[in-house]
Amino acid sequence: MGSRNLTLLTDLYELTMMQGYFETGNTDKAVFDAFYRKNPCGGAYAISCGLDQVIDLINNLHFEDEDIDYLRSTGFFRDDFLEYLRNFKFTGDIYAIPEGTIIFPKEPLVKVVAPIIEAQLIETALLNIINHQSLIATKAARVVHEAGPGVMEFGLRRAQGPDAGIYGARAAVIAGCCGTSNVLAGQMFDIPVKGTHAHSWIMSFKTELEAFRTYAKMFPDNCILLVDTYDALEGVGHAIQVFREMREQGVKSRLYGIRFDSGDLAYLSKKARVMLDEAGFEDAVISASSDLDEYLINSLMNQGAQITSWGVGTNLITSQDNPSFGGVYKLSAIIKEDGTVIPKIKVSENTEKVTNPGNKKIIRIYDKANHKIKADVITLVDEQYNENQPLTIFDPVDTWKRTFLPAGSYELREIMVPVFKDGKCVYQSPSVMEIRDYCSREKETLWSESMRLVNPQEVHVDLSKKLWTLKQDLLDGVHRFAENDHQE
Amino acid sequence: MGSRNLTLLTDLYELTMMQGYFETGNTDKAVFDAFYRKNPCGGAYAISCGLDQVIDLINNLHFEDEDIDYLRSTGFFRDDFLEYLRNFKFTGDIYAIPEGTIIFPKEPLVKVVAPIIEAQLIETALLNIINHQSLIATKAARVVHEAGPGVMEFGLRRAQGPDAGIYGARAAVIAGCCGTSNVLAGQMFDIPVKGTHAHSWIMSFKTELEAFRTYAKMFPDNCILLVDTYDALEGVGHAIQVFREMREQGVKSRLYGIRFDSGDLAYLSKKARVMLDEAGFEDAVISASSDLDEYLINSLMNQGAQITSWGVGTNLITSQDNPSFGGVYKLSAIIKEDGTVIPKIKVSENTEKVTNPGNKKIIRIYDKANHKIKADVITLVDEQYNENQPLTIFDPVDTWKRTFLPAGSYELREIMVPVFKDGKCVYQSPSVMEIRDYCSREKETLWSESMRLVNPQEVHVDLSKKLWTLKQDLLDGVHRFAENDHQE
Repeated sequence: MGSRNLTLLTDLYELTMMQGYFETGNTDKAVFDAFYRKNPCGGAYAISCGLDQVIDLINNLHFEDEDIDYLRSTGFFRDDFLEYLRNFKFTGDIYAIPEGTIIFPKEPLVKVVAPIIEAQLIETALLNIINHQSLIATKAARVVHEAGPGVMEFGLRRAQGPDAGIYGARAAVIAGCCGTSNVLAGQMFDIPVKGTHAHSWIMSFKTELEAFRTYAKMFPDNCILLVDTYDALEGVGHAIQVFREMREQGVKSRLYGIRFDSGDLAYLSKKARVMLDEAGFEDAVISASSDLDEYLINSLMNQGAQITSWGVGTNLITSQDNPSFGGVYKLSAIIKEDGTVIPKIKVSENTEKVTNPGNKKIIRIYDKANHKIKADVITLVDEQYNENQPLTIFDPVDTWKRTFLPAGSYELREIMVPVFKDGKCVYQSPSVMEIRDYCSREKETLWSESMRLVNPQEVHVDLSKKLWTLKQDLLDGVHRFAENDHQE
Repeated sequence: MGSRNLTLLTDLYELTMMQGYFETGNTDKAVFDAFYRKNPCGGAYAISCGLDQVIDLINNLHFEDEDIDYLRSTGFFRDDFLEYLRNFKFTGDIYAIPEGTIIFPKEPLVKVVAPIIEAQLIETALLNIINHQSLIATKAARVVHEAGPGVMEFGLRRAQGPDAGIYGARAAVIAGCCGTSNVLAGQMFDIPVKGTHAHSWIMSFKTELEAFRTYAKMFPDNCILLVDTYDALEGVGHAIQVFREMREQGVKSRLYGIRFDSGDLAYLSKKARVMLDEAGFEDAVISASSDLDEYLINSLMNQGAQITSWGVGTNLITSQDNPSFGGVYKLSAIIKEDGTVIPKIKVSENTEKVTNPGNKKIIRIYDKANHKIKADVITLVDEQYNENQPLTIFDPVDTWKRTFLPAGSYELREIMVPVFKDGKCVYQSPSVMEIRDYCSREKETLWSESMRLVNPQEVHVDLSKKLWTLKQDLLDGVHRFAENDHQE
């Protein structure tokens, strides 16, 4: 977010609650977990993304005079609280799963340990950023899994506002897209920008041939000609004519070929491949765009479509079939001034929505033989695991389902890292292209059965015995608590 | 967009095409239409939104030194073109349908008449802004149509990035939401902000009662208590206990009541209404949130749910069932230096995608008796209509379907207005709340049959005889044109 001040990018209720904590003198520390409940698009995984912008958010957190004046004008706030805001600084700790990591439901992606008044303020913007970028990264990973490495992010015009285009492009490249059409995102994140011309270029000339010739002369080294303004296969013929002229003039092109933006892409691409090959342009690229998504690309691949370069727009940049990530931010513990930790639980009629209490961390278990993920275990922060000991993990709902891991058969990795300590950032984000490399290695740790489009195998996220027991005790206690309430 | 420089918020191909126009010395003016093809969510209308941000975009359009340096670093651009960009200014004309207007497919929402090199640059960002805000305004209008006036926009945490939250809130309020939880949007657009507290507030206290009491003491005048942290109906009981205590202490509240954020909202709200009424709190508000959208609200209303205040989040702010508007920007004419207008058409296998050629305007026809919209007619700019003459309009596809309008039975309104003239803004945007009032009157011009959720009646968008004939002539000409191309 650069130096934009997004401090007021928050729900009003965060501020009214803050005034409540301020007025009651509540100086407890709170532990909040940001997590999601369900993988997008019916998949079996997601990809964490957005942390670097959360860091910007926290680093820039402050109330300007005009913000204070505005808040006063709403009539909700008292002067002493507004004065407190004037000097507001975030002083807490933040832990997070690094960007580009494979993640699963219910795992804290970001954990905030801070005075409750501070932790409450950042809820909304933190969720906004993490929800958006993790959603688009996950969608992009799905598309790239089907299409291969040649996916370009082309969706800016259909993104939900400028930031959705900018940070969506960032997330898409992290998850494996080879570039974006979005020039501002290219500039901001030093990621490859791609693109050639539109139908309007063709239409601004008297003939398609003249338009192609002019373009090829201007950009011989990046010459992808859009062939479907009038008649797609006739357009291929015109493109071939121009490529022949380039060849005759001795022009060598680094990248040349055609793009289809409509029509039956399976049929057209196969036909065009034959035409190009027969004319001696075996290295001409065939690229396609036109309402593509992972399902359509999978179908085109199965039909033997001759496309190696994909421009994916609307369906990726909005995650069309699942446009929200659903991340939430829940209180999991209160830490009193004397250090006592009071674990907190949010119950719900819906068992899936019951939260995991306490101050937690996540242990990822890899199969030592192939470095694939076997399971994740959410534990309390003070628990210790040792790879040289055998380990038994169990399903938190069907507890009789157990897996025994012999000593030496598995490797462990704690996947959250410290990001802020006492309000100071202690984490240096890698560059976007470095995160992309890391994400590519991360995807290698998933079984292919968990990446398929239909009925992917879910990865187990278990609770440690200690955390599971704590949760059961608290659930039993809810009823005792309710009874106490009745007696008041 | 305030003073943010979004000049590079564009697809790379706009810039490569610009270099092409620059190098070929193309100084023609182009007419581009931004329009959409299909109403979102299966509806029969949309609401135009985003123009004020397009104005900001155009007013701030310029390339900074660092932008030029960045473009040079990509290797795509020549020095003479980059020097041209350094002094780039938009010098064209823009016409648009004002924000908050009811709109229909294929109508130019924004028309750009400018040197083609300038008109090309703004395509992507213009579409991004108009697509996003028109989408959310349309979705919000649908929700408000079902729920009535008490809809609050609550979606910031699930919006696709900060701008999606900020400008989504703006669009939602324009289309009829009574406020937003988004404080930054409140500050930027002077729109009402709403909200009280979250589950975490309750959980930070030992008991729900204590949390309610503390909140009521702090905010007696805006006291909506969230009752479902532990057990929803028990929560209602605790809220009533606190309202009683307020009454006993003589505290008068401007706005008080309860909120449900989960569970069976029909059952719970009816039960709560009885409990509140029996305790003498007939004016207590029952509000609800929890994955609401227009369909669920319609169902709750049909079940007699006792809810008058609705917090609508994810499904509104992302337009969950239809998260993109699909607006496009198509060349419709070239204007030569001598003033000759060359109409342009984009053909497509899909008849629906064939564009309307020429420099156009839109005439809206109202029934004089009830001021409802009878039809829109897209015409060429130089056509004149006269309300004192009878008028026959016809369906552009099934041309035998005709409607005869006797003189005096109808009223006309041209719905596009000039926004930029020779690069200068000539339009003063109303405030967001003024646009909201206008939009509310606009919605009155739609027949209720066009607003229902299921099979709404589409409103006719016809072409004038002159435009229709021009289009047919150009379509016939496409084949002659293709033949010419073959002869080269």
